[in-house]
Amino acid sequence: MTDSPSEWAEKIFATDHRAITRAITAVENNDAVAVPLLKRLFARTGRAFVVGITGAPGAGKSTLVEKLALEYRQQGIRVGIIAVDPSSPFSGGAILGDRIRMQSLVTDEGVYIRSMATRGHLGGLAAATQDAVSILDAAGYHFVLIETVGVGQDEVEVARLADATVLLLVPGMGDEIQVFKAGVMEIADLFVVNKADRPGAEQLGQQVRALLAGAARREEWVPSVITTVATTGEGVAALREGIEQFRTYGEQRNLKHRRRKEQWRARLLELLRQRLFQKAVAGHLDDGSIDRHVEAIMQRSRDPYSVIEELIGEFVRASRPQAGEGRP
Amino acid sequence: MTDSPSEWAEKIFATDHRAITRAITAVENNDAVAVPLLKRLFARTGRAFVVGITGAPGAGKSTLVEKLALEYRQQGIRVGIIAVDPSSPFSGGAILGDRIRMQSLVTDEGVYIRSMATRGHLGGLAAATQDAVSILDAAGYHFVLIETVGVGQDEVEVARLADATVLLLVPGMGDEIQVFKAGVMEIADLFVVNKADRPGAEQLGQQVRALLAGAARREEWVPSVITTVATTGEGVAALREGIEQFRTYGEQRNLKHRRRKEQWRARLLELLRQRLFQKAVAGHLDDGSIDRHVEAIMQRSRDPYSVIEELIGEFVRASRPQAGEGRP
Repeated sequence: MTDSPSEWAEKIFATDHRAITRAITAVENNDAVAVPLLKRLFARTGRAFVVGITGAPGAGKSTLVEKLALEYRQQGIRVGIIAVDPSSPFSGGAILGDRIRMQSLVTDEGVYIRSMATRGHLGGLAAATQDAVSILDAAGYHFVLIETVGVGQDEVEVARLADATVLLLVPGMGDEIQVFKAGVMEIADLFVVNKADRPGAEQLGQQVRALLAGAARREEWVPSVITTVATTGEGVAALREGIEQFRTYGEQRNLKHRRRKEQWRARLLELLRQRLFQKAVAGHLDDGSIDRHVEAIMQRSRDPYSVIEELIGEFVRASRPQAGEGRP
Repeated sequence: MTDSPSEWAEKIFATDHRAITRAITAVENNDAVAVPLLKRLFARTGRAFVVGITGAPGAGKSTLVEKLALEYRQQGIRVGIIAVDPSSPFSGGAILGDRIRMQSLVTDEGVYIRSMATRGHLGGLAAATQDAVSILDAAGYHFVLIETVGVGQDEVEVARLADATVLLLVPGMGDEIQVFKAGVMEIADLFVVNKADRPGAEQLGQQVRALLAGAARREEWVPSVITTVATTGEGVAALREGIEQFRTYGEQRNLKHRRRKEQWRARLLELLRQRLFQKAVAGHLDDGSIDRHVEAIMQRSRDPYSVIEELIGEFVRASRPQAGEGRP
């Protein structure tokens, strides 16, 4: 608990699970102690290959993640798993269920599993997940799976973190074409038709292939469409091969470098957004003054835009002495 | 185009569709011209009742929104509809399809329909949607429906904007219980089992009721569970009644006021985050300098955390003269 940042970093380099857990918790809580640690870890990052696995609720993501992790473990590769959960009082049971289904992995020291909550981050989930990936990367987990529940903006952000993004579809989810509304079609590098033992799997695969043939993409790579039955493990080896093919493709075309560059751009701006806000709010806004502003706005005696201009002005003035520069 | 903010505001008060459209576009693009307009509109806001409608892709949200809007139109109430779309090159067709399905509404001057994209907002979607609601509110749309595609963080944010949140479920989407992972169960005020002509509708309704009976909620209101067939209009009148019941309940218990207070708190912090970032990035970071920082990070010659500290320091120093305060 009283480790110095460098002692803490050494434990993480030695893959100490408790040190890793403490670090991710610190990152999740936006705890200031994380920053000197992350600075120390940084030089040892950049080696992990990060795969995002996404799809609608009920698509079988957790089961597939477990089976895929086992595939990589058989190659002797350390696997980090980050499950991004919308933290719901209702979902507690279901998520616990997932983690129990991953029991084949929990006794394996070469696997690290971590859930990250989406609530309470006020938009900082992407930044926290990035930092968690860096921690696992520095700890020697050179294959990291990020599982996201749901369909939406979160997935787009996760795709920005990932070197490869896998989208799970399942037959029989009603009007299949509706899936293509989800805004994640164009960010997926591999498509998986899971629960392929159900009726409609073949048509769904064809539909996806037809859509991909016609669509403009950000790279020349034409995504593979792989069919799996995650519960039995069928097709999981093919998925691993598909991921490795994409990895090789990406390394040959400098794709990984290009994506990482985009990622760092987005990450730098996100970090800036996050830290500026923390600094402004932590230092200069207490609950009482927020409440007073809210009351004035609700009574329409002030408008929120003027309040914000005033608050930013206050922040800038209050930050002045910190610059430590004397005036002549 | 060369309207002054007050001329522009007058047009919006007169429910001029083109002026409304220009205003929402300005808000969506984070255009600075929106701020003086929003300040002027603000005093006339606070009258609209805002209903969020959410659910997984394929649940039938667009159809239900259309039918519900028609119900309210029959009462002579102006209806604003905001569809939050993940903007995908793939989804273009499907979304166009929705809008075409809403054709019964497009010739009605008492209805305003607008899609808002989720891409490119760097987390500012909630703020932009809030501002769009304010614009419609000021324009006299006193019933506003917000339709969100997908399941996840976006929905939680939309619920923060809404006076009432409706969650659509459909039978036969695979393992129904998985829906409860979605993190939106606890934010819904009304549940709709849509496509109720399909097998499994009754069991799904029972499942939801059983879950609700056991669950802790943030208010004493026990959400209604309503069954609909949106395509035929069956149950839509009951949904309107359910919404009105909840509205009455909320007004009696001061619930609307309490929620609005929470909303304004969240909105004020979100606006602060957004504006601080804009100010920092717009004034002090060009693409070239971002690229240089990214290169240094990728070569591991610098770490991102130190870069951010430096950038915030620069922002604060550069903002100094704006405070306009002389030193003795």
